[in-house]
Amino acid sequence: MQNTLDYIFRPRSVAIVGASRHHGKIGYEILRNLKEYGFKGAVYPLNPKAETIQGFKVYSSVPDIPGSVDLAVIAVPAKAVPTIMDQLGEKRAKGAAIISSGFSEIGNKELEDSVMEKARRAGIRVIGPNIFGIFYSPARLNATFGPTDVKPGSIAFITQSGALGIALMGWTVLEKIGLSSIVSVGNKADVDDADLLAWFKEDPATKVILIYMEGIKDGRRFMEEAKKVTAIKPVIVLKAGRGRKGMIAASSHTGSMAGADEVYSASFHQTGILRAVTVEQAFDWATAFDSGRIAFGNRVGIVTNGGGAGVIATDACEDHELDVIDSPDDLRYELRDHMPEFGSTKNPIDLTGMATHEEFKGSLTAVLRHDSIDCGIGLYCETAVTDPSRMARAFIEASTSSRKPLVVGMIGGERVERALDELNEHKVPAYPDITRTVSAVAALVRWSRRREVLSSTS
Amino acid sequence: MQNTLDYIFRPRSVAIVGASRHHGKIGYEILRNLKEYGFKGAVYPLNPKAETIQGFKVYSSVPDIPGSVDLAVIAVPAKAVPTIMDQLGEKRAKGAAIISSGFSEIGNKELEDSVMEKARRAGIRVIGPNIFGIFYSPARLNATFGPTDVKPGSIAFITQSGALGIALMGWTVLEKIGLSSIVSVGNKADVDDADLLAWFKEDPATKVILIYMEGIKDGRRFMEEAKKVTAIKPVIVLKAGRGRKGMIAASSHTGSMAGADEVYSASFHQTGILRAVTVEQAFDWATAFDSGRIAFGNRVGIVTNGGGAGVIATDACEDHELDVIDSPDDLRYELRDHMPEFGSTKNPIDLTGMATHEEFKGSLTAVLRHDSIDCGIGLYCETAVTDPSRMARAFIEASTSSRKPLVVGMIGGERVERALDELNEHKVPAYPDITRTVSAVAALVRWSRRREVLSSTS
Repeated sequence: MQNTLDYIFRPRSVAIVGASRHHGKIGYEILRNLKEYGFKGAVYPLNPKAETIQGFKVYSSVPDIPGSVDLAVIAVPAKAVPTIMDQLGEKRAKGAAIISSGFSEIGNKELEDSVMEKARRAGIRVIGPNIFGIFYSPARLNATFGPTDVKPGSIAFITQSGALGIALMGWTVLEKIGLSSIVSVGNKADVDDADLLAWFKEDPATKVILIYMEGIKDGRRFMEEAKKVTAIKPVIVLKAGRGRKGMIAASSHTGSMAGADEVYSASFHQTGILRAVTVEQAFDWATAFDSGRIAFGNRVGIVTNGGGAGVIATDACEDHELDVIDSPDDLRYELRDHMPEFGSTKNPIDLTGMATHEEFKGSLTAVLRHDSIDCGIGLYCETAVTDPSRMARAFIEASTSSRKPLVVGMIGGERVERALDELNEHKVPAYPDITRTVSAVAALVRWSRRREVLSSTS
Repeated sequence: MQNTLDYIFRPRSVAIVGASRHHGKIGYEILRNLKEYGFKGAVYPLNPKAETIQGFKVYSSVPDIPGSVDLAVIAVPAKAVPTIMDQLGEKRAKGAAIISSGFSEIGNKELEDSVMEKARRAGIRVIGPNIFGIFYSPARLNATFGPTDVKPGSIAFITQSGALGIALMGWTVLEKIGLSSIVSVGNKADVDDADLLAWFKEDPATKVILIYMEGIKDGRRFMEEAKKVTAIKPVIVLKAGRGRKGMIAASSHTGSMAGADEVYSASFHQTGILRAVTVEQAFDWATAFDSGRIAFGNRVGIVTNGGGAGVIATDACEDHELDVIDSPDDLRYELRDHMPEFGSTKNPIDLTGMATHEEFKGSLTAVLRHDSIDCGIGLYCETAVTDPSRMARAFIEASTSSRKPLVVGMIGGERVERALDELNEHKVPAYPDITRTVSAVAALVRWSRRREVLSSTS
């Protein structure tokens, strides 16, 4: 009987096998992150040569730990791991995150198999080996050697790549992207994407799941789980190794049997997975889903103070099969009250550079209220006569007036950067680029549509 | 006889017709920008009701100006512009930037024609009307009502859209993108893209020309000029109004006869213009050309410390028809000295997450030195064991070792953000995203190739 992954994400106690006294060492950084991020459970650092590290009492070996162990984070040389796993079995530990590398990723399959056999016999669930750790914000668990201050949020990020994953972890801090979880899956010797999909499906903290993968071992099981999840929560996959050379590179990197890319694409499509091609796109889409809004169709209304921004957005809408509908007469009539004299009530609705935040709010509220529109796009170009922060509040108020999605693009300098943060804080998806804004809308629309199809056939 | 555009870009004197005492007014902001950005020529603010503004002596009308006028910046109501143009003619002014709107863009073609006839008769070159001004960093000329502290650099940015252009001006400040010039062309009643291409072709401060356009009036002349320029300097065009709806939006915005998009694409291709689809892409490419390097082929060598980053980059290279060649044996042999034990000498060359900045430098230097590679790509994922700033210096040193292009992608948090700035300061194009990095390389390669073709046939 295998233990549930709950022990790994919400452990009552964490043992760090291979805790180090030396700043910069993995076994030091993980302990520091656990402490600094505010983990409230019991922490048992293990090191035969130390008495205390960072104020924690240190134990010399697994059997010495006074309490039970829900999660063991293992950061000792690969060859020592089998013994540790035996001891964890005796200790009736529930889960293990094997940070150590030197297993199947360098051809050392036998060692990995031996560790996994011991784990399975003891019912211990294993993440890894060859990972940078696990992060779960609701439990204040940062058992990684990545950055400390990860922003809590609703995106679960699963990554097969270590260095890229840890770098992106830092990037999310910079970009103020909120995460419920980060799981470095490494060699996926036990817990794989399918297991994690199943767990995050039930996780109330997670609204959207984002996976970086190079290959899947059990494709059928993954697709079965994915189908269940996408009916409830969006799943975004960045599957690398698309082309011939990319596939070879992926196989060389993680030993993934990449398989024909078309097969992946078709399966993703069938199961309602959104396939992203770039990292930026994947996180942009995930941020859009953070709003929790659903678009019941592809008809968009674009409101802008920059004619050029409206044209670029219209192009992007056509690329993404979003319908920039002709404004109906009653809407055009209403919009006249919310724009300067020379504005255009056509869609894209051009308020001109003279537009105030009140006019943005009024016109977007009218657009979102109208039956013929499923989704609003607000595009603001910073000008001398407007204040980006007030503009952000106008967007937030317009968004609050409706249950339809409103996605915002704001172009400009530092004040715009801050305004974008404010919008995202208020769950109004907002981007510093027009095309990215439209791409996020398209992802919302695609998923909303898939969700309907899947719900109606299940 | 028409005056040269030199008077507009490098005026010895600037008159501001419609200077205002009121903060936030266009006629105030332009004067402030002129002053704050350090324009060294004579400045003549015109306002019948003021004696001094911002410390400048104010004149009540054009005839009162004591000296000659190279550039008149006109920010008075449209109906007053014809009289001003008459007076400027008598004053033998050389150029005018008509900020005022209310001309052909709102159907007032007659008024525009009358102004232009007067200008032509007097030989005055006109930018606009309906613009936000002109900026030219070598002359410390910021005659716009946009942001003040624009970063000097080598990109000339021509924009048909006002609000978007001014917002992007602020965005370049935020993104630390250096500009030689910004020209808001508005209604293009006189000076158009072709004139500007011809002028920037000869401008030593400008290395690359980036145009946002919705339509061209004289397509043949534009293409003729473009062909001459692209043999020497790259020209990037973001032509909006690509699809059916986008074309209608463009026509509604600037009255452009958009014309079939295929015609534009074919003409751009024929003349060696690089067509960008998004704003981000256009500026990413422009930044890449700032390095001044040329790629003599499409064979790339990718060096990374993150296997996943290498796979994503390889995919992107295949999308862009860049050849991620198999590392030749002699290169693989040499690379062994510059990587940790479990690194891979295949291309993408994976130094693993343990790689030091010395190893990055050594391996990239070897890659750039090898005959089988035309262009290097360095991809760094921030890890706990490396310092992004040291890494940036390693990239700079590797780049200095060769004349081939080295383009860098760095993924991570705040320290990476600073490191990217450092790289760009040193003319090593660097981006916070893997796919954007590869796209920039592809633009370099495409232009280098076109340049060869054009040079050999001309």
